[in-house]
Amino acid sequence: MIVSGTTRITAIIGTPIAQVKSPINFNEHHSAQGDDAVMIPLDIKSEGVKSFVDFVRNAPNFDGFVVTIPHKQVIATLVDIISPRAKLLGAVNVVRRMPDGTLHGDMLDGIGFYQAAQAHGFDANGKTAQVIGSGGAGSAIANALCEAGLKHLYISDFNAERLEHFAQALREHYPNLTVTTGFGDASSVDILVNATPCGMKETDPLPLDAAFVSDLPKSAHVADVITSPVITPLLALAQSLGLSTQTGPEMAKSQTGQLGQFMGVISVQSL
Amino acid sequence: MIVSGTTRITAIIGTPIAQVKSPINFNEHHSAQGDDAVMIPLDIKSEGVKSFVDFVRNAPNFDGFVVTIPHKQVIATLVDIISPRAKLLGAVNVVRRMPDGTLHGDMLDGIGFYQAAQAHGFDANGKTAQVIGSGGAGSAIANALCEAGLKHLYISDFNAERLEHFAQALREHYPNLTVTTGFGDASSVDILVNATPCGMKETDPLPLDAAFVSDLPKSAHVADVITSPVITPLLALAQSLGLSTQTGPEMAKSQTGQLGQFMGVISVQSL
Repeated sequence: MIVSGTTRITAIIGTPIAQVKSPINFNEHHSAQGDDAVMIPLDIKSEGVKSFVDFVRNAPNFDGFVVTIPHKQVIATLVDIISPRAKLLGAVNVVRRMPDGTLHGDMLDGIGFYQAAQAHGFDANGKTAQVIGSGGAGSAIANALCEAGLKHLYISDFNAERLEHFAQALREHYPNLTVTTGFGDASSVDILVNATPCGMKETDPLPLDAAFVSDLPKSAHVADVITSPVITPLLALAQSLGLSTQTGPEMAKSQTGQLGQFMGVISVQSL
Repeated sequence: MIVSGTTRITAIIGTPIAQVKSPINFNEHHSAQGDDAVMIPLDIKSEGVKSFVDFVRNAPNFDGFVVTIPHKQVIATLVDIISPRAKLLGAVNVVRRMPDGTLHGDMLDGIGFYQAAQAHGFDANGKTAQVIGSGGAGSAIANALCEAGLKHLYISDFNAERLEHFAQALREHYPNLTVTTGFGDASSVDILVNATPCGMKETDPLPLDAAFVSDLPKSAHVADVITSPVITPLLALAQSLGLSTQTGPEMAKSQTGQLGQFMGVISVQSL
């Protein structure tokens, strides 16, 4: 990879930033494709986010940027055009700069998840899901499943207010969907998703009762958003029961393609 | 070169930007040194420059930026601390971001030139210079020669108002220096510098009378700031007369080290 005067720029913004994997994922792809493009990490404090957005509007060799913690919510208020799902979720994780400087924001966290689930043969249409967590990842994943035609969503969160607010937004947005807060009947669940950090540390308990996992149908798909460890205690349990499983890195890999296509720097053909 | 989440960032800003050589010069150096650092080109329209500066103040993994046409003058009004010479010249070509977010601007265009001249054995102390052009490059070079102890400066420009304004600023800043606008007596000149674009095109005339060059002392040093062609008609004439000559690329190469040291991303030892 050679970065010269002609190289086109994308960024991932957040703070801290050193831990993010997107620059390596994007730059390996650009390098393999021979693209004259680079993704850089930008550590931006909250006070600098609005200035950054204004600068990008006036920077013609900037194609867009990926947004990570803690800026996803504020970016949703700063872009010029926001997708319906990003508006519903109150968060933006990717911004494309149009040639006239207009900034277009979307929220693709759940789309990457669902694409990875589809690769396991899962189809959400008419199905029942149990999602644990209604924060950034959980809400995006739940919404992506709803967009794909989910029939019933069970969703739980220790934060009751956030959970109820999100559940109500989904009910208004998807009239044919039923949304129930808390845990449902395991035997009715087609897909179980852990979208909490529970499982990152060795000493973490399971994010739900082990009995719930044991009671899932044999056809159920179990997914975790945690990227390290790759096999969380939840996934290990599901595997031991012979269930289909999906890891956090599978979701992350799928996201690179989705984010790059949205910014116009990765083509479908190159994936 | 691998750009990952931990990579530190510098930029060169201007518009247009595709023609700039700094990213390749810096990135080849970073790559050879194994630095986890990248310089990116940023094409920024004038309306975006203030936002960019505000963003950099709040971006801890940004070490600084180089400034090129047409932003050198406005950046001089936007940084927090400006060097005396950048203030005198009304222009900044490099900005360092301090750990607390303070932006420190300097103007090193002339310093790179003078370092390249020193490599030819030239010492400005007590000498007489003829500089052609008092724009960005010419004023920076003239000032660097004055800083190094020049005794007499002749400086010419087709823009009489700009020329007189700059000459007067130098007179106030360097009480022991004499500054004369226009052309001096060639036989008294120790260094002749072309700091105009005259010589970039094949059909360009010499930037001064050929007789002036012929009348220089045999010990005179002749320099051009033009980087393409490397050997301008002026330098070809000087060479044919057996004079010492200095090319634009020599100045540019010396500048990379100067700019990188100022931003704290290139060490003296690595040059």
